[in-house]
Amino acid sequence: MHVISVGIVGGTGYTGVELLRILLRHPKAQVRVLTSRTEAGKPVADMFPNLRGHTDLQFSDLNIDVLKECDVVFFATPHGVAMQHAKDLIAAGTKVIDLAADFRLQDLEQFEKWYGMEHACPDVLKDSVYGLTELNREKIKQAQVIGNPGCYPTTVQLGLAPLLKSAQALIETKNIIIDAKSGVSGAGRKASLGMIYSENADNFKAYGVAGHRHHPEIVEALENIAGQKGGFDGLLFVPHLVPMIRGMLSTIYVDLTEAGKQTDLQALYENFYANEKFVDVMPANSSPETRSVRGANELRIALYKPQPNKLIILAAQDNLVKGASGQAVQNMNLMFGFNEDEGLQGIGLLP
Amino acid sequence: MHVISVGIVGGTGYTGVELLRILLRHPKAQVRVLTSRTEAGKPVADMFPNLRGHTDLQFSDLNIDVLKECDVVFFATPHGVAMQHAKDLIAAGTKVIDLAADFRLQDLEQFEKWYGMEHACPDVLKDSVYGLTELNREKIKQAQVIGNPGCYPTTVQLGLAPLLKSAQALIETKNIIIDAKSGVSGAGRKASLGMIYSENADNFKAYGVAGHRHHPEIVEALENIAGQKGGFDGLLFVPHLVPMIRGMLSTIYVDLTEAGKQTDLQALYENFYANEKFVDVMPANSSPETRSVRGANELRIALYKPQPNKLIILAAQDNLVKGASGQAVQNMNLMFGFNEDEGLQGIGLLP
Amino acid sequence: MHVISVGIVGGTGYTGVELLRILLRHPKAQVRVLTSRTEAGKPVADMFPNLRGHTDLQFSDLNIDVLKECDVVFFATPHGVAMQHAKDLIAAGTKVIDLAADFRLQDLEQFEKWYGMEHACPDVLKDSVYGLTELNREKIKQAQVIGNPGCYPTTVQLGLAPLLKSAQALIETKNIIIDAKSGVSGAGRKASLGMIYSENADNFKAYGVAGHRHHPEIVEALENIAGQKGGFDGLLFVPHLVPMIRGMLSTIYVDLTEAGKQTDLQALYENFYANEKFVDVMPANSSPETRSVRGANELRIALYKPQPNKLIILAAQDNLVKGASGQAVQNMNLMFGFNEDEGLQGIGLLP
Amino acid sequence: MHVISVGIVGGTGYTGVELLRILLRHPKAQVRVLTSRTEAGKPVADMFPNLRGHTDLQFSDLNIDVLKECDVVFFATPHGVAMQHAKDLIAAGTKVIDLAADFRLQDLEQFEKWYGMEHACPDVLKDSVYGLTELNREKIKQAQVIGNPGCYPTTVQLGLAPLLKSAQALIETKNIIIDAKSGVSGAGRKASLGMIYSENADNFKAYGVAGHRHHPEIVEALENIAGQKGGFDGLLFVPHLVPMIRGMLSTIYVDLTEAGKQTDLQALYENFYANEKFVDVMPANSSPETRSVRGANELRIALYKPQPNKLIILAAQDNLVKGASGQAVQNMNLMFGFNEDEGLQGIGLLP
Repeated sequence: MHVISVGIVGGTGYTGVELLRILLRHPKAQVRVLTSRTEAGKPVADMFPNLRGHTDLQFSDLNIDVLKECDVVFFATPHGVAMQHAKDLIAAGTKVIDLAADFRLQDLEQFEKWYGMEHACPDVLKDSVYGLTELNREKIKQAQVIGNPGCYPTTVQLGLAPLLKSAQALIETKNIIIDAKSGVSGAGRKASLGMIYSENADNFKAYGVAGHRHHPEIVEALENIAGQKGGFDGLLFVPHLVPMIRGMLSTIYVDLTEAGKQTDLQALYENFYANEKFVDVMPANSSPETRSVRGANELRIALYKPQPNKLIILAAQDNLVKGASGQAVQNMNLMFGFNEDEGLQGIGLLP
Repeated sequence: MHVISVGIVGGTGYTGVELLRILLRHPKAQVRVLTSRTEAGKPVADMFPNLRGHTDLQFSDLNIDVLKECDVVFFATPHGVAMQHAKDLIAAGTKVIDLAADFRLQDLEQFEKWYGMEHACPDVLKDSVYGLTELNREKIKQAQVIGNPGCYPTTVQLGLAPLLKSAQALIETKNIIIDAKSGVSGAGRKASLGMIYSENADNFKAYGVAGHRHHPEIVEALENIAGQKGGFDGLLFVPHLVPMIRGMLSTIYVDLTEAGKQTDLQALYENFYANEKFVDVMPANSSPETRSVRGANELRIALYKPQPNKLIILAAQDNLVKGASGQAVQNMNLMFGFNEDEGLQGIGLLP
Repeated sequence: MHVISVGIVGGTGYTGVELLRILLRHPKAQVRVLTSRTEAGKPVADMFPNLRGHTDLQFSDLNIDVLKECDVVFFATPHGVAMQHAKDLIAAGTKVIDLAADFRLQDLEQFEKWYGMEHACPDVLKDSVYGLTELNREKIKQAQVIGNPGCYPTTVQLGLAPLLKSAQALIETKNIIIDAKSGVSGAGRKASLGMIYSENADNFKAYGVAGHRHHPEIVEALENIAGQKGGFDGLLFVPHLVPMIRGMLSTIYVDLTEAGKQTDLQALYENFYANEKFVDVMPANSSPETRSVRGANELRIALYKPQPNKLIILAAQDNLVKGASGQAVQNMNLMFGFNEDEGLQGIGLLP
Repeated sequence: MHVISVGIVGGTGYTGVELLRILLRHPKAQVRVLTSRTEAGKPVADMFPNLRGHTDLQFSDLNIDVLKECDVVFFATPHGVAMQHAKDLIAAGTKVIDLAADFRLQDLEQFEKWYGMEHACPDVLKDSVYGLTELNREKIKQAQVIGNPGCYPTTVQLGLAPLLKSAQALIETKNIIIDAKSGVSGAGRKASLGMIYSENADNFKAYGVAGHRHHPEIVEALENIAGQKGGFDGLLFVPHLVPMIRGMLSTIYVDLTEAGKQTDLQALYENFYANEKFVDVMPANSSPETRSVRGANELRIALYKPQPNKLIILAAQDNLVKGASGQAVQNMNLMFGFNEDEGLQGIGLLP
């Protein structure tokens, strides 16, 4: 059996440890190199004790020549790192999957505005593919560079795609409200006063109401799905912080058009995702709980139609798996011709 | 100093223990009797160990003659109990504050639909006053029977009142979305599989999306505030369950009218609540955290105007205090001519 | 490849859903029947939404003839059920693994005292094997009936075995203190006031100090390990409840004998468990965290020697996995000649 | 009514905000100055939103002349700050209460070993009083400088004092085991990777097993209580971290002497603390829960005698209140001749 060799750059955060948790059990991939600017020489299992006994990997300094020998390199780094190395890697035939934002936004102006840096390789960006697997499957299979989607945008796109991909205009695109909620791990693994336990436990709040980086990503992605420029300008996106480690739920409110009112939307969604392993359209009146996908590469959707012209879409996922590392591996599987669910069949930890 | 005598019926739930926590430190009230069908004879401190050393009260059977000797009786009971006794009590000159729903809805049809019982005293209901203190202060001072508001409706009314009380129509009332989040204590203190720790911790979900009892209360209350029948039919209310004990945040989305767009809404809110001790309009771009009011009789509001014609209102409170027992005592203070904040000056427990 | 057929009796609790989570991904076992007195006819995925898409199994009534067709039947039932059926099943050649206490205690008097019932099949009990895998491996391979250990006793036995199995007496067996801490899932999945979220979150307490069912199991098991009757009478066992779902840590305090003082205990433990896949002796001065084994069939041990004659042993596991369902599958693997880690290679969910 | 003026140095941590929560409601004290090296000019309510509406205080730079005008200054600072200023302050007649460790240990060698600094004012230290209120009441009344006890040491001293103060030797002092558990707020309010939510929630672990700063404090304090040098050398102290914000429980194991075996220890404890408002000896077989004292200046004790010669003492408190800021105010009350419970009558927040 062919086994590909994998590099992970910047594996000291939560997306890094999740990549390792998945890839160390992947039958067709082997992690060969794991880099960290600060932890070179340290066994990864010393940092992430769940990995004890499962790997001897040590962090190493980033060496581009070593990375070039990999079949694929994941960047689980802060924004702005992958774009420094992508060109070299793809020139060497190494595929790139960036879990940060370097290849999410085609709109360079938006990128620079929200991430505060100039883009290092606009040409590579132009050829890169946005890795929302279910919606871009064919392009992903051919891609050299993947911009893995943000966690919130994943719920929104999968939550709205059946409506936007419909031949008819089913919703008023200018009037979408996304009230989103995330566990604390979404903020990453870093020493920050705002993230400490005693500031977050037994507490609930909104954040980033005045502006969040995932907003432009959501708008650009929805435009791509709908195949139209503009039309989503009225979209509101309000993220909230939930005192839990993992999990994300987006509650999406849309106004239906006349056509939308007359469509069997439950059937629309069920058909749209009928062949998808990782998207679950629940029966009417269900409530997707984040714990039902804890640790699993799954997204669950439920629909409510409280009034003839209103639709509420609930979309739940594990922000670190389907919202990050799991989807990244799903993309890797496509890029190398593996079964899409290879290494991703794990069942969520309910209690 | 005159001290009133207080009875509490059904003090075995969380609103009961919160009433005790507040009233045992109230300088002008003394709890004389505390009833429970199931716990008669048991010291209340055996059930609620925070009260050890602070009271010798024991639960007793409900004896209407004993209750009649009280100046005021709080019902911290399931729905349908207060209405059985209110008539007798007010005939004896005893005031009644019901923390359940018996005196919240004037619309009998809605009451019967949502609570599954016929109302036992429609005439008393007609004379009762809805206890949203800040909005009904003068009536509350004269009331014999108070229907203490539901927790969610408290956030919604205080969150929208400045807009609805304005001389001009500032918002499209038919298009209000309330995405609400509550800690688990909102579901009360009862043995239920859905409420156990391992089903709720590290989890987030919506519930009651297809219909929640607070929806008709919200609509009736907003109609009263706005002084109009109808107009709120399009209102959506989606509650969610947060893995925390206390705390409630409502995120309210409204569309502004032309007049609304041209109004300084921050100033409007600040003026509206300028003299309120328990409603805090935070500066623009603030995020009210539920922990900031933990244990305190306070509600904090913040406004965002993400687009010229959209307003987002965040309203946070402790569901057991301003959302229940604290507001009940606030009403009691008014009914007996005490300072409104008597016994309610406690500062929230931030960490 | 030979695949065994598996029955699960009483799969509506947390050990049930964990058995399913593991066995639905086990390459050599297939769950054929799943019974519940109360939920017959209901798809198991309706009760445990993490299983949606992973199984079509429905609960059925307990039918002994159907169970007899299984190669092995797990009892994830309350105490006292497995002993009603074990005889019939083994007569039909079906192996039995009981996750309750029916086959944990050989001492019938203790069983009756602590579980309040007479034992239904003392003869089957006599032939049954106590399923602490690492310590009873050879007997388990031959067993027809397994009494799967309690969660606390698993930590204590694996934590003390290297000392007790030593040729020399290394510790004062009469003076062992076990200060144990468990997540709330250890109490199972049932509607109980004491288990609800608002009573357990943000709280810590001891429980069962005056007597806990795992105490006699621990004593009997340690006697068996040490190969001596008596000697553990002074053992203290104090369990505590931690506001977390899963996870268990036992802090064990022992006094060293002269021989113990002169032994390299770190080396003793490392050697003792050198070939064990599921027991991890951490380096000196480590602290095993429960999250490091969340969802994994692993137990981690660390030793401290704060004084020449004192040893502190820390032993951490996931109470639902190595402390229950994972160890049960580990035993099943041995009973059917599979690799011991078949289906149990999953890595823990750290964050 | 005489009102004293209070200064707080370093009020940006959790003991700082707790001091403010208590003192802003204290009828005989007024906080006049609040210093912070980093936050000068910032309103304290901007940092601690629970204080919004309750104070206009702003942080200021530390100005010793301003502090000298206060009647008392609390140091809620890192270790090593109070000792820089204590001499100046007491020379000006200002009393000092240090919540850090500068005045806890009389043994300078131990201080320097554990806190890594030389003591700046050994003479002031010699005259300072250790502020375990219930045990040092008379000295505290006369003190100029108070070393407020550590949180763990408070539970241990109050848990063992009745035994150690007895005329007869009731326990084997050389063989005490303290298995202690604390909420995360005990580690303070600082940006640290080890303290972030996702590293601590749903997790349990021991820490500081190889040595903790409270160990020498406990030993010195117990020696003082027992009135003997030495004898506690065998004491073990193992702290653990509980995924909750506040709360501390120490489980203390002691061996009884012959005299101890024959003493009615429950009566001994009840008598010892009969007149104490803030120490509650619960009935036999009780379990003190940390939530029962959440936010309250109380410590609850329960005793178990599982064997004739063994005693288990459970002692629970809120680490930030009786274990820190509450006890500090209790000491202040004594120092100024106020009722000891002035400002400290608040009842804990149970749910």
